[in-house]
Amino acid sequence: MIKKRLFTPGPTEVPPEVLIEMAKPIFHHRTEQFREMFGQTTEGLKKIFMTDNDVLTIAASGTAGMEAAILCACRRDKKVLVANGGKFGSRWVEVARRANLDVDEVKIEWGTAISPETVHDKLTSGDYGAVIVVHSETSTGTVCDIQAIAKEVSRTDAILIADCITSLGALPLRTDEWGVDIVVSGSQKALMMPPGLAFVSVSQKAWNIIETITPPGVYLDLKAYRKSLAKNDTPYTAAVSLIRGLRVAIEMILDIGLETIWERTAKLAHATRSAAQAMGLKLFSSQPSDSVSCIWLPEGVSDSQFRGILKDRFGCSVAGGQGDLKGKVFRISHMGYVDPIETIGLIAAIEYALAECGIAVEIGRGVSAAAKVLKDWK
Amino acid sequence: MIKKRLFTPGPTEVPPEVLIEMAKPIFHHRTEQFREMFGQTTEGLKKIFMTDNDVLTIAASGTAGMEAAILCACRRDKKVLVANGGKFGSRWVEVARRANLDVDEVKIEWGTAISPETVHDKLTSGDYGAVIVVHSETSTGTVCDIQAIAKEVSRTDAILIADCITSLGALPLRTDEWGVDIVVSGSQKALMMPPGLAFVSVSQKAWNIIETITPPGVYLDLKAYRKSLAKNDTPYTAAVSLIRGLRVAIEMILDIGLETIWERTAKLAHATRSAAQAMGLKLFSSQPSDSVSCIWLPEGVSDSQFRGILKDRFGCSVAGGQGDLKGKVFRISHMGYVDPIETIGLIAAIEYALAECGIAVEIGRGVSAAAKVLKDWK
Repeated sequence: MIKKRLFTPGPTEVPPEVLIEMAKPIFHHRTEQFREMFGQTTEGLKKIFMTDNDVLTIAASGTAGMEAAILCACRRDKKVLVANGGKFGSRWVEVARRANLDVDEVKIEWGTAISPETVHDKLTSGDYGAVIVVHSETSTGTVCDIQAIAKEVSRTDAILIADCITSLGALPLRTDEWGVDIVVSGSQKALMMPPGLAFVSVSQKAWNIIETITPPGVYLDLKAYRKSLAKNDTPYTAAVSLIRGLRVAIEMILDIGLETIWERTAKLAHATRSAAQAMGLKLFSSQPSDSVSCIWLPEGVSDSQFRGILKDRFGCSVAGGQGDLKGKVFRISHMGYVDPIETIGLIAAIEYALAECGIAVEIGRGVSAAAKVLKDWK
Repeated sequence: MIKKRLFTPGPTEVPPEVLIEMAKPIFHHRTEQFREMFGQTTEGLKKIFMTDNDVLTIAASGTAGMEAAILCACRRDKKVLVANGGKFGSRWVEVARRANLDVDEVKIEWGTAISPETVHDKLTSGDYGAVIVVHSETSTGTVCDIQAIAKEVSRTDAILIADCITSLGALPLRTDEWGVDIVVSGSQKALMMPPGLAFVSVSQKAWNIIETITPPGVYLDLKAYRKSLAKNDTPYTAAVSLIRGLRVAIEMILDIGLETIWERTAKLAHATRSAAQAMGLKLFSSQPSDSVSCIWLPEGVSDSQFRGILKDRFGCSVAGGQGDLKGKVFRISHMGYVDPIETIGLIAAIEYALAECGIAVEIGRGVSAAAKVLKDWK
């Protein structure tokens, strides 16, 4: 009878309105009914991406969106700059290497982000076809200044590919205004959907490169998705029930308005950081992302005991650390369908879990700090 | 995108496991499949009622259970004692009067409960066929000492009819051990179900009276339900999907154990009372029930503004006052599918709403007080 709640930075909670929509009977994807619906989700996604570019929907996880960008938009005759400051930066490096690209990996200390200056220096000293950055590095809870980075890249012939999997719909992201050529995202984060859909927006500058490249394989060929999109269609079988749910989720998001959602997400993150400080906990990142908070576990606290109490006693799933951070940090999502009620409740559960793990916390300090920040929630 | 939560003292939150079960395709009630299921829910209810008596299930609201007890188990040649200390006490009086019973209404100040001594005095000075008390008066958040009252009644020929609509499965209630002849309850409270089912347990002492009475009408004739129950059946069409959900809800309740649930409910009530005190709020009742907290609205606070903020901004539905208390109190349920996470979150929302209504509350005091009480939640 434990009430379960996902505070993991993906998958996140899915609203009942979306779940109910997805439970409705399936219909065929090669129908006018589907095309009409798919046209609506594409239009909605363009608003969320803040772009007039094509936004392609692939029935796959976010990683497929990453690989599609690598395979289709990275020239073989030039280098690709990949900023790696965490687990997802590493994944981009891995995908790019597997594609036999000439990868220039910029290793960044975990918890920090690549600077626009580094991008500038790299671009002026080498011949790059693409720059790949992770906007919000989920493994470390770190955000980069993608607007300034885009400015640097747009001055060159290179394109900017941004992993916005835990930023789209959570953090300010103005694709066209800032000039981000390729934005990759997924369904199971701030879009309040189950996993299963990857989204890729592509600028004209990027299409000009994509047109010159024949990727190995068919499923991740972005040109095929663009061609079908012209008829509000998909090249391969669409995940109909996910698209159904997506239409409802997008409607909910646009009803509130993107700016309001950004503010809310930032407010929940701020409250969590204030609570962490009040509890004597330290944030991992020096450039914290508002979509996911990565917090050091105090010395001597067992990760499995700590997160076990949160999950088994209070129904709250938070994420552990990844890679080198395994067992050392925990991570809380502020994306999508989460609110002050549950965030404040989670803080209380964290206080209880810390106390049970032997840490001297004054119960009530964290929740009180979080409550103060969330006072003017709108 | 407001996450909605019911803190109303019925209906209460329904767990997804129950909702999903009820969404399954309907099957016919005159089948072995139904009888097997109904046999299981009846056995489960007996455990929750802590009785070996028959527990009858009627496809109706709790009020129908009240009326069935009045019509079937109250002798016309004797008086019926009805304790009235709130909206539901009043309803019992109304139902008994409509049945043309000789009603001795004992009016009790709202927020207090009838004492065992009063019951004793009444029973020794008059000829009563039945005593009717509300175990937990939902309108005032007040509990009576039903164990002591049962002791008084059991010494006489009268039977005790108890309205346990907001006590069964929330407060200690040992039907057989305490000797409560008729226990009336409903599905939409601590049993974590939607409205639509009434439950009535009947002792042998009560059946002996019921056998002598022919009630007007058929639907609320308890004898018909007993006769069908012998074959794990219902006299009239059963609410199949509700029974389906009930089986799952009962399983969840018995898995945790009644005593644990009683402790949890008491703990949530205690936390809420501590928070109320910390916020400078006053409890309405002098004998507070642990299933529902009834709290005075501070002078000058508009009920609709206060509860409107809770509901529209934070998705938290709490109940207002009933009858003379309309606009003067608000009520919070601690029954069923509710936990510390949401209760602490609700307290924060109450702080915000009070502040916005012009009350000087120090944000964080209430949540901190609640968090302290809920520290050792199990």
